[in-house]
Amino acid sequence: MSTSTNRLEKSEVYVKVDVCIFAINEDLKVLLIKRSIPPDKEVWALPGAFVKKEETLEEASIRVLKKKAGIFENLYLEQLYTYGEIERDPRGRVITVAYFALVDSEKIKISENADWHSVYELPSLAFDHGKIVKYALQRLKNKLEYTAIALDILPENFTLTELQKVYEVILGEKLDKRNFRKKIFSMGIVKPTDKYQLGVHRPARLYTFKRDLKSKKIPGFRWTKMEL
Amino acid sequence: MSTSTNRLEKSEVYVKVDVCIFAINEDLKVLLIKRSIPPDKEVWALPGAFVKKEETLEEASIRVLKKKAGIFENLYLEQLYTYGEIERDPRGRVITVAYFALVDSEKIKISENADWHSVYELPSLAFDHGKIVKYALQRLKNKLEYTAIALDILPENFTLTELQKVYEVILGEKLDKRNFRKKIFSMGIVKPTDKYQLGVHRPARLYTFKRDLKSKKIPGFRWTKMEL
Repeated sequence: MSTSTNRLEKSEVYVKVDVCIFAINEDLKVLLIKRSIPPDKEVWALPGAFVKKEETLEEASIRVLKKKAGIFENLYLEQLYTYGEIERDPRGRVITVAYFALVDSEKIKISENADWHSVYELPSLAFDHGKIVKYALQRLKNKLEYTAIALDILPENFTLTELQKVYEVILGEKLDKRNFRKKIFSMGIVKPTDKYQLGVHRPARLYTFKRDLKSKKIPGFRWTKMEL
Repeated sequence: MSTSTNRLEKSEVYVKVDVCIFAINEDLKVLLIKRSIPPDKEVWALPGAFVKKEETLEEASIRVLKKKAGIFENLYLEQLYTYGEIERDPRGRVITVAYFALVDSEKIKISENADWHSVYELPSLAFDHGKIVKYALQRLKNKLEYTAIALDILPENFTLTELQKVYEVILGEKLDKRNFRKKIFSMGIVKPTDKYQLGVHRPARLYTFKRDLKSKKIPGFRWTKMEL
């Protein structure tokens, strides 16, 4: 490849995006696709696509999200890491820019060869996708500690019990109710509404996120196991 | 491009690495190269290179570090972010995986067309490199808050005053000596040695980093302006 002219020779280095799509459904799930073609035919893999010349990395990721998960809205999408080991794809030198997304599982219509898998019971994954999911899960847990990322998978109004459930599912552990609420209020990310649950015996008050905090860092706060 | 066969057609998407090399020399400096070829000829840019088919992203970055800065050891290298805007390089669709490095400026022999620039007085940069430096600087400051990254630019033994200077230069602000020391000791990242400064009137004790902490996260600690 020449860098000294305005024309570049064709490249033998290829670029993909692969997306870890997380959703909460009983426990924390990641969307996997059963590969229909070699390499690793019939093996589960992250949904992904080769990046087209005329689309950005985010546009390529959104194309994957639409095609494989029918996702068009309420999306949290973040670049995770770029994987460039030489032998990671037998087809050639394929670098992948990994993204992770957190979605509301009720708004999704997955494609035929796709399925949700618990992050705690993953099958063998194609390529280095097992490593990618592991890192994405770590990043998601870290984000939960200091951002309002949970907002992206909760409805507009929710009970504090529902919010606690999101934290418990992502962190993979039970939290103490009293300490959880104390911590959430000290974070200042939720505010009470005038609404209450419908159709239950003792309806709980509904809360909402302070909109300006969406996925922003909350300085000085770290959510650690010890504190809960 | 075909994904359905084992052979991939040649790609029109290109991959580069660009490296933000930081060092402390009076203030915080970044290494820039004056471009000798179009595009942006004679404009300052980050040192970078197209990724070769047979090298990893890290190997490409290290090739850049060796060639442009003569750096072979005591290197802190971390992947920063991958930039994939369509129009970011007029030569074609060039995606760049940005890295940042923190180096000891005394161990470096920079190439002829390279020079150190204060991060607070940057010239106009080629491509989107201004944006990349800005983000790298933010990442570096964040790392200082919760890791022992300062280790990578200090000698084996150092005084607490020298350590404070590193923090002050990277954060771009004066810190209170008493509070700084209190905080450093509470982080548990340094330990005293039996050695003292040489050739000064009132020699200060020399400290060293606890080696196992090198660049690791220190859980629960955040270095915020307010705390100092």
